[in-house]
Amino acid sequence: MTLRLVPTEEAAEDRLAALARLAQRTRDLMEAVTLTDVPRDELDAVATQLADLTGRLRRMRRTLPWPEVGPEGEIRNLGNAVTGICNPYAPPLVIEPAPGGGVRAEVRFGPVHAGPPGAVHGGVSAMVLDHLLGQAAALAGVGGMTGTLTLRYREPVPYGEPLVATATVTRREGRKSWVDGRIARPDGTSLVEATGLFVTPTSWPVS
Amino acid sequence: MTLRLVPTEEAAEDRLAALARLAQRTRDLMEAVTLTDVPRDELDAVATQLADLTGRLRRMRRTLPWPEVGPEGEIRNLGNAVTGICNPYAPPLVIEPAPGGGVRAEVRFGPVHAGPPGAVHGGVSAMVLDHLLGQAAALAGVGGMTGTLTLRYREPVPYGEPLVATATVTRREGRKSWVDGRIARPDGTSLVEATGLFVTPTSWPVS
Repeated sequence: MTLRLVPTEEAAEDRLAALARLAQRTRDLMEAVTLTDVPRDELDAVATQLADLTGRLRRMRRTLPWPEVGPEGEIRNLGNAVTGICNPYAPPLVIEPAPGGGVRAEVRFGPVHAGPPGAVHGGVSAMVLDHLLGQAAALAGVGGMTGTLTLRYREPVPYGEPLVATATVTRREGRKSWVDGRIARPDGTSLVEATGLFVTPTSWPVS
Repeated sequence: MTLRLVPTEEAAEDRLAALARLAQRTRDLMEAVTLTDVPRDELDAVATQLADLTGRLRRMRRTLPWPEVGPEGEIRNLGNAVTGICNPYAPPLVIEPAPGGGVRAEVRFGPVHAGPPGAVHGGVSAMVLDHLLGQAAALAGVGGMTGTLTLRYREPVPYGEPLVATATVTRREGRKSWVDGRIARPDGTSLVEATGLFVTPTSWPVS
């Protein structure tokens, strides 16, 4: 069984890598669409060819959910709107444990995330912090549903520049946990701050 | 002058319509990428052709910001991450004044907005509400920067189903305004609720 399982897993992993590449090519396209200034006829010609490629991808459709547990037993969230490497909508955010506790992610927003002139949409910052705070709670073993999330907007968030997002659990009280997080410049200047309250369900599965 | 201006504006509008169609074709592609199950070689073939189309769009790049004021003097936010019809990242949200005051938008999320199994990412709901609350404040003439935004998650938000998002100003105190909003099922069941505090800058332009 093992001899047959290994190559099958390799083929599956190979396929996921191809999907991740396709998602990245789609992100590149999204950015090009928001910035392009080619003539109108060329816009139409590209749109027609895009519709053709979409038709080709639609010929077979997944019926199963994403295989969210990797070969090493890790959780991957491949289709997640914030971290999914196979979802072109996701930046995708790469989250890692922070040296001093909690989690961190390096973020570089793009022109598709535009809000006010020259700045990232406040809602996009909110989206990233919602996810990061949830991950900090999960890493601390107090995962659950986000109960409330409060955002404080300090300064406009620039796109095209490297930024750092962090989050850490600050307090626990019974089934409730509070998590603080923020998006900051590399020099530590805080741009957006967030506090989340997470509630662990009474029926939270142990495994 | 007028005789020359009118055709120029028509050509510009025609071009924006082509860009909006291209953005919509790109959204269709994004969804197809998240759902496809075609063989690995086909994934690679489509990715290669996508890179080619991206290259064609990159041949000319806008140096000017979007023309955000339309021919009727309306504000359009064409490249906005939430409402921009020319930005494939935007759902795009179509916001209108609500009959009883405030603003409303019909929303139908898709698989690219995935968070927990079968549900929309909480951060995507946060993003939509951030924008809608800001629009409610702007419509009431108390626009400004979002100071804080608080979200309360009541129930998982489904995708593929028609939902309604609403927001309205509830209180004003000097330069501060409070706005309440929510995403609900058509029957009124509240899924996510939000309260925003907006602060009008002292130097807020009158026009």
